[in-house]
Amino acid sequence: MVKRYLELRSLAEALNLLTTSFPPPRRTEKVPLLQAAGRVAAEPIFAKYSVPEVNISAMDGIAVRSRDTISASDRNPVTLDHCARVNTGNIIPPEFDAVVMIEDVWESGDRYQIRRAAIPWQHVRPAGEDIKEKKLVIPRGHLIRPFDIGALATYGFSTIRVLAVNVGIIPTGSELVPLGVRPGPGQVVESNTVMAQVFLSQTGARCTRYPIVRDDPDLIREALKKAALENDLVLISAGSSAGTRDFTDPVIRSIGELIFHGVAVKPGKPVMLGKVMGKPVLGLPGYPLAAQTVLREFAATLLESWGFAPAPKYPVRVKLAQTLTSDPGFDEFVPLFIGRIGNTLYGMPHGKGAGVQMATIKANGYTHIPAPVEGYEAGTDHEVFLTTDPGSIGRTLFFTGTLDPALEELANLAHDKGLFIHATNPGNFTGILALKNNTCHAAPLVLPAQNILGMSQPLMEFSEIKDLGFIHIARVELGIASWEGLGLEDLVHARFINTRKGTPSRSVLDTLLAAEGIDPGRVNGYGHEVHGPPAVAAAIRNGFADAGICTSGIASANGLSFVSLAHQDYELAVRKEMLSDPRILTLESIIGSPAYTTLLKTIGGYDAGLSGTIRELGQENILVPVSLPIQP
Amino acid sequence: MVKRYLELRSLAEALNLLTTSFPPPRRTEKVPLLQAAGRVAAEPIFAKYSVPEVNISAMDGIAVRSRDTISASDRNPVTLDHCARVNTGNIIPPEFDAVVMIEDVWESGDRYQIRRAAIPWQHVRPAGEDIKEKKLVIPRGHLIRPFDIGALATYGFSTIRVLAVNVGIIPTGSELVPLGVRPGPGQVVESNTVMAQVFLSQTGARCTRYPIVRDDPDLIREALKKAALENDLVLISAGSSAGTRDFTDPVIRSIGELIFHGVAVKPGKPVMLGKVMGKPVLGLPGYPLAAQTVLREFAATLLESWGFAPAPKYPVRVKLAQTLTSDPGFDEFVPLFIGRIGNTLYGMPHGKGAGVQMATIKANGYTHIPAPVEGYEAGTDHEVFLTTDPGSIGRTLFFTGTLDPALEELANLAHDKGLFIHATNPGNFTGILALKNNTCHAAPLVLPAQNILGMSQPLMEFSEIKDLGFIHIARVELGIASWEGLGLEDLVHARFINTRKGTPSRSVLDTLLAAEGIDPGRVNGYGHEVHGPPAVAAAIRNGFADAGICTSGIASANGLSFVSLAHQDYELAVRKEMLSDPRILTLESIIGSPAYTTLLKTIGGYDAGLSGTIRELGQENILVPVSLPIQP
Repeated sequence: MVKRYLELRSLAEALNLLTTSFPPPRRTEKVPLLQAAGRVAAEPIFAKYSVPEVNISAMDGIAVRSRDTISASDRNPVTLDHCARVNTGNIIPPEFDAVVMIEDVWESGDRYQIRRAAIPWQHVRPAGEDIKEKKLVIPRGHLIRPFDIGALATYGFSTIRVLAVNVGIIPTGSELVPLGVRPGPGQVVESNTVMAQVFLSQTGARCTRYPIVRDDPDLIREALKKAALENDLVLISAGSSAGTRDFTDPVIRSIGELIFHGVAVKPGKPVMLGKVMGKPVLGLPGYPLAAQTVLREFAATLLESWGFAPAPKYPVRVKLAQTLTSDPGFDEFVPLFIGRIGNTLYGMPHGKGAGVQMATIKANGYTHIPAPVEGYEAGTDHEVFLTTDPGSIGRTLFFTGTLDPALEELANLAHDKGLFIHATNPGNFTGILALKNNTCHAAPLVLPAQNILGMSQPLMEFSEIKDLGFIHIARVELGIASWEGLGLEDLVHARFINTRKGTPSRSVLDTLLAAEGIDPGRVNGYGHEVHGPPAVAAAIRNGFADAGICTSGIASANGLSFVSLAHQDYELAVRKEMLSDPRILTLESIIGSPAYTTLLKTIGGYDAGLSGTIRELGQENILVPVSLPIQP
Repeated sequence: MVKRYLELRSLAEALNLLTTSFPPPRRTEKVPLLQAAGRVAAEPIFAKYSVPEVNISAMDGIAVRSRDTISASDRNPVTLDHCARVNTGNIIPPEFDAVVMIEDVWESGDRYQIRRAAIPWQHVRPAGEDIKEKKLVIPRGHLIRPFDIGALATYGFSTIRVLAVNVGIIPTGSELVPLGVRPGPGQVVESNTVMAQVFLSQTGARCTRYPIVRDDPDLIREALKKAALENDLVLISAGSSAGTRDFTDPVIRSIGELIFHGVAVKPGKPVMLGKVMGKPVLGLPGYPLAAQTVLREFAATLLESWGFAPAPKYPVRVKLAQTLTSDPGFDEFVPLFIGRIGNTLYGMPHGKGAGVQMATIKANGYTHIPAPVEGYEAGTDHEVFLTTDPGSIGRTLFFTGTLDPALEELANLAHDKGLFIHATNPGNFTGILALKNNTCHAAPLVLPAQNILGMSQPLMEFSEIKDLGFIHIARVELGIASWEGLGLEDLVHARFINTRKGTPSRSVLDTLLAAEGIDPGRVNGYGHEVHGPPAVAAAIRNGFADAGICTSGIASANGLSFVSLAHQDYELAVRKEMLSDPRILTLESIIGSPAYTTLLKTIGGYDAGLSGTIRELGQENILVPVSLPIQP
């Protein structure tokens, strides 16, 4: 039970070691111009010739000697002895120094007459106007953009010498299967090196992914030696934690120098840096989000210090929609949703599942919380970074309220229409507050559950923000799931499994137990809580409990019998002015679509009869008391 | 002299016609995952299996049944009959529902003892925590980013169906030579289609560049038919103006429909749209910056309307450092330099040469002035777009004052150190004002010329901003260039060529003429102005004039003889606090470097003896009256 603890360095110290221990490899390569976009010029590029190479006309007209025109006026037209007809782009013969537009020229016999003096060099594109021979076109270190390619082509370049770097990437882990192979239970597709290759290739790195090495120090050592020999930088994926099968650290020590192992950064703490044959070896943690952090903050930073283009990183200032907490002492990187409510940009931290890869797929940004900071209060201004195009900001919607599987399906369909819904689940009340404070676009609410909570003024917060609209998502049945069709009164004999306080199912149970005069203490397992209805059904299916409260859909999906206790309406509340917002109109049409109602039927337990209908606050339906048709 | 004028449509109307006349081609292709970054998913992607597929341990420890642990405490350790040793990532056998960290486990004989209850599902990564089987991973239309590739690999995808489009690009013009061929005088490298291919390939378009077609309507017609047959979109470069050799318009009319020709957009006015065999045909103007506008605003917009990712476009709000004027009625796109002075972001329009390709290479952004707007006042807030990484903002320096070839060389060397100098030439006085108003980083000043202007309080504005530092760039000799070594008194007999009022050479001349009692009216050609000293020397070399004022360096570069009239000091003035700014320190070290002083010697006419030395305001040297050593 001995555990090796990592000696953690600060991120700043680690990055300083990383960027000062390894001079640039100064590898360059010549690439065809058409493949040079995104690459960095390895040397300054000077014009081979002037553009234009000679004076050319910028207009259709006549080339003149400006001296000959000085006295010309309407009263004193000048007929020219020396001039030449030119079109736009034509060479101006060396004896001329100006062009008169054809509209300002009169014919006089076979000669031309003008009525205004020509200023020297008027309508002339002088030789070298764009670039002069031998002048700098792009400097060493210039990131070549697509439109630069056009200029480089014009200036006669068809190949460009750019910075190059060879990066070797070694996947380690006996549990890994290669891309394209279906992993068995406990196996994982080797994806971190795939991600590393795609990410680093953006800057022009030539990446070699080596075959998967299983957890064997000798094999890892051989792979590392080969990669260090063949590359300027080696990434070795996984095996960097402090577990018993984590060999990267001792292997590096055995053939080189370990510079650091463990950095106070989250995710990414087990990152390590070694030097083997003079080459930097970066140890990537196995967790994909930790690997992302190390790729972005370490590998890309090293390449940047070697002169490569920085990874695209677009800062945006946002107001935090939620408080962001962080471990003091750790530099933390948090996936974020960035959206606009009214005229304010908001950043919403990704919730619970921030450690999973879906978090990065769904998020459109991230933020960096420096080590000394313990977090940021909701409402504070904060710099964050976009990971996708800024247009995604307008397509991101924040939902705050009560979640339900119906919302996940809605989010999926909306996503397919280009809308990114980020929903948090603090409950109805907080959802209503967020609507009132204009910190969410919509509040998904389970309406009767709110009433069951015993609020004397039902939905009282609504009265303070009069202008609300409700889009009806579906009606849902809530009841008891079990193998044997247990009812409310059977709960005292069965092993019950509960959900946490404040959830609709818990509220329904409490209300009904009170109505029936049953002391919750008599319910065996009342204090045994799981996260929500799906976990309830899973616990019963797996034999940990006999009964619990969930929706009819979840019960049937788990093959359980179901005794209905109550209906609840699942509604999407929005400010009335948002009812005409194109994004809300899109949601409304999705909710009312056959595709969505069919999907709800497939899940089961939803009554989609009124899905997509809209009610505005003040209409009586919205405030009716809950009906609780207690089943026998 | 008949001229066909284009019937101009508004940009909005043109884009509406463009995006509504052509439904998406709905072409898709399957690409290997490693090549999918930057592409757009053509269909929603659903998880093939859950990740993790089974419950796995998130910690090293023992898997337990949480029910067995309820009574455990320090006073009441529980020895477990049923549990299993697991490491992080190991499968949790189905009978267990929690993991106890190994640190919280005691050995009791060959069994494990615990002293705290385990909460159900603690330290368990439940099956499907990352993604559940059949759930949406990415929707149709999702732009695949490098880190998404990692997730897609984890979820078992090795190929992805993405949107595809075939774009055919036809270069036309008898003056064109292909990439790689040295253009002769009046010839141009065919670069617009190269640029178009690189730009559109970013979104995943498969571009085919066809061979250059000369200005022959029959050949253009054949090329257009072939391209329309083989592609979803055709770009035809040049031949779109209203000149006599512009055949694209009639060719499109002869085999299809012309939708519009001419849009009120600058640059890009001659853009045209046709329909041939049902395919959109976009006519790109030949001017590279006009072609860029059409690629970015038209071609990319059409692809975006077809579902492709928008071209990267990162908005930034800046204060305009200069007034930006625009033709009302035209949507105008202007290259910009975007930099930070103090805490304020400034946008500086590119000056005179905005029509040349070097403007796009040098600029790090652009702005769009909508048609109804006549321009924006200096100092107003304004949205602009970055064309490079945001880091370039901090590397951009604004210089306002008096330009000199020495500054161009300095800018080139600085560029090679990653600094982008944008210098404007409104003269010393405006430069000093800009320093005072903190709207430039530095003011290049020609000091004696300032005094010559007859300001009674020499450098008076300096006294209001006490904290100035001067980096000496070089001392320059100013005098008379001619073939025959003419002096001041010879000017009344020679054909003189002047520079415009306010230039140092003009001021020196005026002062000296006054000192010598020579009436400027007696100087033949006094009123004949060219832009600056280089143009003066060129005019003499080309025989348009006999004498003029320029620097000794310019005179010798043109093979002219030179009679010195005055010295001037070329200084870089900065606010004193900027003397410690790393960018200014870089400039200082460049100015003092042998590389720079050698360069000045090569140009000729510079005394670099004190280059790079720093003086602060108040030291007498800076305010000494001008010495004007008149040559015989």
